[in-house]
Amino acid sequence: MNVHVGDPANGHLLTPEELEAKLRAIGAERYHHLHPFHRLLHSGKLTRAQVQAWALNRYYYQAMIPIKDAHALSKLPTSELRREWRRRIIDHDGDGPGKGGIERWLKLAEGVGLDRAYVQSTQGILPGTRFAVEAYVNFVRDRPILEGIASSLTEMFSPDIIADRVRGMLAGYSFITEETLAYFTPRLTQAPQDVDFALSYVKAEARTRVEQEAVLSALRFKCDVLWTQLDALYLAYVEPGMIPPGAFVPG
Amino acid sequence: MNVHVGDPANGHLLTPEELEAKLRAIGAERYHHLHPFHRLLHSGKLTRAQVQAWALNRYYYQAMIPIKDAHALSKLPTSELRREWRRRIIDHDGDGPGKGGIERWLKLAEGVGLDRAYVQSTQGILPGTRFAVEAYVNFVRDRPILEGIASSLTEMFSPDIIADRVRGMLAGYSFITEETLAYFTPRLTQAPQDVDFALSYVKAEARTRVEQEAVLSALRFKCDVLWTQLDALYLAYVEPGMIPPGAFVPG
Repeated sequence: MNVHVGDPANGHLLTPEELEAKLRAIGAERYHHLHPFHRLLHSGKLTRAQVQAWALNRYYYQAMIPIKDAHALSKLPTSELRREWRRRIIDHDGDGPGKGGIERWLKLAEGVGLDRAYVQSTQGILPGTRFAVEAYVNFVRDRPILEGIASSLTEMFSPDIIADRVRGMLAGYSFITEETLAYFTPRLTQAPQDVDFALSYVKAEARTRVEQEAVLSALRFKCDVLWTQLDALYLAYVEPGMIPPGAFVPG
Repeated sequence: MNVHVGDPANGHLLTPEELEAKLRAIGAERYHHLHPFHRLLHSGKLTRAQVQAWALNRYYYQAMIPIKDAHALSKLPTSELRREWRRRIIDHDGDGPGKGGIERWLKLAEGVGLDRAYVQSTQGILPGTRFAVEAYVNFVRDRPILEGIASSLTEMFSPDIIADRVRGMLAGYSFITEETLAYFTPRLTQAPQDVDFALSYVKAEARTRVEQEAVLSALRFKCDVLWTQLDALYLAYVEPGMIPPGAFVPG
């Protein structure tokens, strides 16, 4: 859990617009588009082995998203809300074998030269990846649904980074094809649709300054989850290149 | 959770001695005495600011130990076992105000120039520290007590590192006094006492190879928890010095 909650007692109730502005300010300061690892990834400056490490570790995040969303689903009180949230699970798990976001991420991992079964085993991921992703799943499981939904709002900032990433990676890496990056294409439409719902929800349901501060903390926490995953990749595979015992060693 | 479990189906039941040997081998490969951050810390090569970052982040680990042990206590079936485990909570929380391991850690933090209230707020700790420590607390809360007890066995390896640390830090840092390091003195006797119980417990209670593999995995997991905390410190405060948004910035 993160501890950046101010002293709500001293604050007035924010208007929905003020709350949204504070959420956007958090993204501008803390979203992982600012992380040096992404700068390198998107500018074609990583080796194939470093891109493999990214794809391998990011797989665990992708694979846990429907688990996280199932915890959220279990806390939503109406069919209408659950139908809305259920779409996220369908996006990731697909509506049949070989479909969905997790499957597309496996194709990305295979596309950069990793073995599918090795990726699925999550055997080689960094402990830092595992702990950050599990912190996110547990956060949504253990906190009120208002905070769980707020923690999804990093998607407010993802269309830009995805566009940069696809453009940069296609230009920068000979081993990356449009097909390899097929994961990202549907995200460009799915993310905004998800954000429309989640943002309206938190603007409507955060009815006290304490709840509004909890919403802001939840987004800071989620930015920490994303940032920490790139920190772990950077230390292990970029600089100084300290791979922890048991983690993926590029062949 | 860690995934280094072998295929127990293919393994014979280990003798208690074989199990202990495998536990010691894990420590020899994965315990954080091997981490470059500790090498620097113990050889007097860190700045005061870097030692402050270590003391600040490690405080969160210290402060959460009794919470972890309370989860373990809640799973122990007899008064005899609970009395044994309760001693760990007393060691950390003390038997009165101003006593116990957490209090001694605060004195260490103050001794290296940190503000007690700031340390207690955990406001400036690294997200990587938070996620690793919470992974440990959740592991003991969520897994069978056999694995919870096994995860405490990193204490098998701590007396050596503590002796090195105290010797190295007193020799290497003018701003460190014996009083500052008072935290560690009782640990030299507490840790072996704790290990005697925990090691006999897992040797007696792991009755199948599957349980023995779970015990070994639990110790690997705990080594990851300790290692990852030093990884986060190294990246942020040693090399390349990438302090994540919101974390402690040495004054």
